[in-house]
Amino acid sequence: MKEDEGFLHTRPKQIRTEIHKGQLSRTTAGLCPGYAQTNVVAIPKEFALEFMIFCQRNPKACPILEMIDNGDAEPHRMAPGANLRTDISVYHVFQDGVLTEYSDVSALWRPDLVTFLLGCSFTFEDAMIRAGIPIRHIEEDKNVPMYSTNQLCDPAGRFTTHLVVSMRPVPANLVTRVIQVTSRFPGVHGAPIHIGDPKGLGIMDLSVPDFGDSVSIYPNEIPVFWASGVTATSAVQHARLPFVITNAPGFMFITDRQDEDLALY
Amino acid sequence: MKEDEGFLHTRPKQIRTEIHKGQLSRTTAGLCPGYAQTNVVAIPKEFALEFMIFCQRNPKACPILEMIDNGDAEPHRMAPGANLRTDISVYHVFQDGVLTEYSDVSALWRPDLVTFLLGCSFTFEDAMIRAGIPIRHIEEDKNVPMYSTNQLCDPAGRFTTHLVVSMRPVPANLVTRVIQVTSRFPGVHGAPIHIGDPKGLGIMDLSVPDFGDSVSIYPNEIPVFWASGVTATSAVQHARLPFVITNAPGFMFITDRQDEDLALY
Repeated sequence: MKEDEGFLHTRPKQIRTEIHKGQLSRTTAGLCPGYAQTNVVAIPKEFALEFMIFCQRNPKACPILEMIDNGDAEPHRMAPGANLRTDISVYHVFQDGVLTEYSDVSALWRPDLVTFLLGCSFTFEDAMIRAGIPIRHIEEDKNVPMYSTNQLCDPAGRFTTHLVVSMRPVPANLVTRVIQVTSRFPGVHGAPIHIGDPKGLGIMDLSVPDFGDSVSIYPNEIPVFWASGVTATSAVQHARLPFVITNAPGFMFITDRQDEDLALY
Repeated sequence: MKEDEGFLHTRPKQIRTEIHKGQLSRTTAGLCPGYAQTNVVAIPKEFALEFMIFCQRNPKACPILEMIDNGDAEPHRMAPGANLRTDISVYHVFQDGVLTEYSDVSALWRPDLVTFLLGCSFTFEDAMIRAGIPIRHIEEDKNVPMYSTNQLCDPAGRFTTHLVVSMRPVPANLVTRVIQVTSRFPGVHGAPIHIGDPKGLGIMDLSVPDFGDSVSIYPNEIPVFWASGVTATSAVQHARLPFVITNAPGFMFITDRQDEDLALY
């Protein structure tokens, strides 16, 4: 466990290099605590404006942290020198809505791609841990559980989908604290969108997540739900675009930006 | 003065109707306290993605509150039923960088326009007043003073400019309070970007603003500077686009959204 903890604390650049070399293929949950992680959506320019409007209309789920155009694959602001074609361990490529997995998308990258880095809630998990809030999926060495809900997003043209959420079980006496801690990070989904009964979101069984892994929920704990960037992936998949590249849910891009850089104050 | 105060508190829809009829042509500073005001930039679709990236890269100056595409002139989310072609009292239309003023742009509106509503700091002035912070330009029945600075924005393609700021003199013992109050409103420029010596922003003479009016500064007061949405206007002007419509600085679009809807918590 000691060794594993040391591994978790590896710096972002080194982790990205290991991912690039194909030496690391696991969820990035718990990796590089203190550093921001992001979703990535690379979309042909002809659809980019409409997709950006979708993100603007659904800022809790799709907070835009950086945009890069003209096929550039280097996030100059969040991780200078990184390569978005190789530095994620599992990519999802959608072609006319059909999904294929890749570990490297260099051969698929196109000069007309506009790439969005969208906030990821893994970013505030270190702040949660420092506030004494347990993170079950990290304790159990799993991906976070994610669920499609019955909440419709505000649509933009061809982009429309149901909100996807991530869930963390929180001891009842820490629910106030977890709201306070995560409210400081609106750029990475911020405050929870729902507390308690999963049926309020149309989720019938927490043990069967739509993405990621199921985790244990103890008797004194309340499920707490945050908007998830997988909402963006769901929107592009449902739009059945001819071509779009995303990260796989829970397999995020790890940036050089510290989580506190993204905090309100 | 009593009568004037009553006038200030007219509801947004009624004020927009008066503006529409040409019965009101003054800065919107102090109007409809408690309601959000916005800048408006209507830009041809071919430039909209790049302009949106500029806004995303400069979120303090250009926070996007709503976007409307395909030539639609109704802000369905911020003010359903309003008409962005008529409900602003002074428009600035830039053609190849050359400015012409209009009070109605119905005849100029085009089906390829994408319209951005960007946050305006007038929105948090009611919260400042409720916190006991005087607003000099409202006291003196003027437009807020605005200045071009020596701070370069993060560019996006053809869009690049210096940051424009608004200034409010604040009694020294209330500077902490004004930071706290305005930090709650990141969608309308949020916390100040500079406190005190204007030379730190390259501003040589506070009595000569680049936009708006100069205001009195009393001996116990410190000039406090906020990023201004006029930065967006400046960026589109410098880009010398063939065509773009904006509001005139300080002559804002008044929405139906309450300022507290835009507050963090």
